[in-house]
Amino acid sequence: MDIKQKSPPVHLDGMQILQALADPVRLDIVRQLAGCPDSGELTCGGLHVPVTKSTASHHFKTLLDAGVIAERREGTRKFLHLRRAELDERFPGMIDSVLRATAAAAASG
Amino acid sequence: MDIKQKSPPVHLDGMQILQALADPVRLDIVRQLAGCPDSGELTCGGLHVPVTKSTASHHFKTLLDAGVIAERREGTRKFLHLRRAELDERFPGMIDSVLRATAAAAASG
Repeated sequence: MDIKQKSPPVHLDGMQILQALADPVRLDIVRQLAGCPDSGELTCGGLHVPVTKSTASHHFKTLLDAGVIAERREGTRKFLHLRRAELDERFPGMIDSVLRATAAAAASG
Repeated sequence: MDIKQKSPPVHLDGMQILQALADPVRLDIVRQLAGCPDSGELTCGGLHVPVTKSTASHHFKTLLDAGVIAERREGTRKFLHLRRAELDERFPGMIDSVLRATAAAAASG
């Protein structure tokens, strides 16, 4: 089995993470991954991302580059997860407060 | 004495606030106002904003429109302050966690 994992950035940059989160589509991806049970992983296809495939790829890349999410490849499938432990350790409370602050918009959108 | 105050938005939008914060110059304005002693107010001239005047005006407007900051006019002078109480009540922990998360970048920048 071919298992690869793209390495997340070693240094987490707070501003880069903030900018990665400050977009409704990307924040919705984060929200879906945050609400993921069990393994916390979803495939790209398992996420509901209402934009074109190339736009979605751009958003995934922005989140991956910032270290907000990480991917695990298994053969041709990509599994994504939120790097919650790393983010909570480095930036306590940020992900939760941002998800809460934007929850109303997500619910009505 | 001519005292006017531009009314901040009645409804605070979490996504709009997040997008207003996700810029190094605007976040630095917020950081300066957050660290302001006594009245919590600064004039535009009292803030260190290393961009052109028109760019600075754009950033102030973005923060005002989102309700992150508010202004009080006294004659021809404008005093700005962070709407910390309103933000902390509506979005607990967000401003503090965002300022903490980006503090290292601000210190080295």
